[in-house]
Amino acid sequence: MRVGVIGGGQLARMMYPAAIALGVELRVFAESEGSSAVAATTKVGDYTDLSQVASFASGLDVITFDHEHVPQQVLLGLVEAGVRVHPGPNALAHAQNKLVMRKRLAELGLPQPQWKEVQTPGELEEFLTPRGEVVVKTPIGGYDGKGVRVVKSAAEVADWFDRLPDLGGALLAEEKVEFKRELAQLVARRPSGQIASWPTVQTIQSGGVCSEVIAPAPNLDAGPALEIGKAVAEGLGVTGVLAVEMFEDQGGKLLVNELAMRPHNSGHFSIEAAVTSQFEQHLRAVLDLPLGSTELRAPAAVMVNLLGVDDDNDFLGNYQTAMAEFPEAKFHTYGKTARKGRKMGHITLLGEDADQLLERGRAARSALYGEASLD
Amino acid sequence: MRVGVIGGGQLARMMYPAAIALGVELRVFAESEGSSAVAATTKVGDYTDLSQVASFASGLDVITFDHEHVPQQVLLGLVEAGVRVHPGPNALAHAQNKLVMRKRLAELGLPQPQWKEVQTPGELEEFLTPRGEVVVKTPIGGYDGKGVRVVKSAAEVADWFDRLPDLGGALLAEEKVEFKRELAQLVARRPSGQIASWPTVQTIQSGGVCSEVIAPAPNLDAGPALEIGKAVAEGLGVTGVLAVEMFEDQGGKLLVNELAMRPHNSGHFSIEAAVTSQFEQHLRAVLDLPLGSTELRAPAAVMVNLLGVDDDNDFLGNYQTAMAEFPEAKFHTYGKTARKGRKMGHITLLGEDADQLLERGRAARSALYGEASLD
Repeated sequence: MRVGVIGGGQLARMMYPAAIALGVELRVFAESEGSSAVAATTKVGDYTDLSQVASFASGLDVITFDHEHVPQQVLLGLVEAGVRVHPGPNALAHAQNKLVMRKRLAELGLPQPQWKEVQTPGELEEFLTPRGEVVVKTPIGGYDGKGVRVVKSAAEVADWFDRLPDLGGALLAEEKVEFKRELAQLVARRPSGQIASWPTVQTIQSGGVCSEVIAPAPNLDAGPALEIGKAVAEGLGVTGVLAVEMFEDQGGKLLVNELAMRPHNSGHFSIEAAVTSQFEQHLRAVLDLPLGSTELRAPAAVMVNLLGVDDDNDFLGNYQTAMAEFPEAKFHTYGKTARKGRKMGHITLLGEDADQLLERGRAARSALYGEASLD
Repeated sequence: MRVGVIGGGQLARMMYPAAIALGVELRVFAESEGSSAVAATTKVGDYTDLSQVASFASGLDVITFDHEHVPQQVLLGLVEAGVRVHPGPNALAHAQNKLVMRKRLAELGLPQPQWKEVQTPGELEEFLTPRGEVVVKTPIGGYDGKGVRVVKSAAEVADWFDRLPDLGGALLAEEKVEFKRELAQLVARRPSGQIASWPTVQTIQSGGVCSEVIAPAPNLDAGPALEIGKAVAEGLGVTGVLAVEMFEDQGGKLLVNELAMRPHNSGHFSIEAAVTSQFEQHLRAVLDLPLGSTELRAPAAVMVNLLGVDDDNDFLGNYQTAMAEFPEAKFHTYGKTARKGRKMGHITLLGEDADQLLERGRAARSALYGEASLD
């Protein structure tokens, strides 16, 4: 069994241990030498070039992804050449373009923030006026807070209107939801239809980047989130792992915020905390193997992201202190060069009480951050 | 942090996921191309050749092992050249030669079967006569039942007496313990002295090969096994993971059977069932990092070995059936070519009740074995 992954980031890196356990051969098509998934890197190249990607795909059972940036013409070219691609081009279109996603979710009748496609500053002002403040997103190319601005006037995205053709031909304006908290629903779906969902989690974001995850989300009626996850996976024909990020508004209603069609930061807790991790499940799903149990191994788990604090501290130098103080913590680092704000690793803790775990996790992170801090 | 492993078997293979998580660079010196640890293989060569091993060690923080077969002169040559080697030559001498081990355990006053060093058939007959039946072992070169015979007369090991210089210059005769069951104590020790022990496990052997492991060993007063494990680790100066295999005799007394100074088949359960797996702990220990928690994640865990059933079935072809029936099972295969009787993988299950887990684990194994069976 041979799986090819386009993209050499930490998600491809974390698929590798799951592949080793299952005896699946993993090959990675990375953007550059020395990527995070360097261990499994088989080819370094340009994923926008169909001939390079097609030659990588030769002899593999299936192609999957570490990110959603592979252009549609490359994806369609692979499918035409008979390559199995999961998730497929039709599904990925919704993760590549937020306007396509909003339109499709509306067709499916799924709950989402009020939104509008805007092509001119005037159209944006019209959406802005009754609201005072809205969120504007570039339909393509955004992630981790990039391509998202909270604005009070159209002038604040004048540069985006100037570059509309590069950004998807229009902008997406959304109501700014005054949410109680953010949630994420992780789901896996096989080509033959089987679906498995992990317990819904709460995510804590900071500056548009995931900072912490609590699994399961405390005091939540799990039903609606699970239903939304399943409806998105089926409605969009997603294969592999899907993450549905949601707002819980003041009234407790869930609204779909973003989608990711691959293992996701909100699911890293599953490596230790679930019977089947999102990385193993993704491999099973894209190979159309039966999905594993998504039960949790403990009543609660917390994942704390490690972001670069400067251009020097790669955290390994602080293992002595942190491991001595936190023998129960699972430390993950991604082999990346240190850079301020960069996602460089995470820590997971399992236990009984989410609040205590969060406190311990943050303290373990401080031990790794050392004297530097992330302000 | 760079760790070099001599030997490319499944133990090196299973160190790799732990290394990826910790951001430790793992390099493997394998005997041949296409070994089980192929993913991490950096060099293929002859581990009995000091110059090859020394060149592999260059730039690494520490050298450790997938097996105990590296000759003393190579180990000592590395140490003289300033290479950190864990476990060190002095400790490894006890795992390489069973007579050296028996003598040292006797000096330490640790409980073991009655034994005698024999150089002639006459000496063996003298040990045999009052007992009727004894176990004879070659001091060097044995593993997984090889180099061990249960005999009623010295004639049954005549071929070994003919080759004494190759086998350690003498044979080891031991009383045949009528044990109630077999146990194993897994311990990790850092060069700076810290020790961590996992719960003692019960091992079920078949034809001299580990077949199943139950963690923790049911109905056991854990104290004595933990004390023996600690005493061996400290008394022999072991660094890294140590497995002490023991008999529990009819009266409940523990007797040391064998030692392994590396991650061990009896500890594979720890990948999912312990907060820190034996593979992660081994890396921490040889790098002299603080040891992680050895607590179990569940009340009980069972590990079932997968042995080759023929020269064809590598089990991957039966994943569809087995995974559909056993969504809670953790399947591990080692990327080896099928060969009857070969250790090719294992399955781990976690839960409440060891008996039920054992039954489920054996059924999952049958599903992978398919129509073939191991007789």
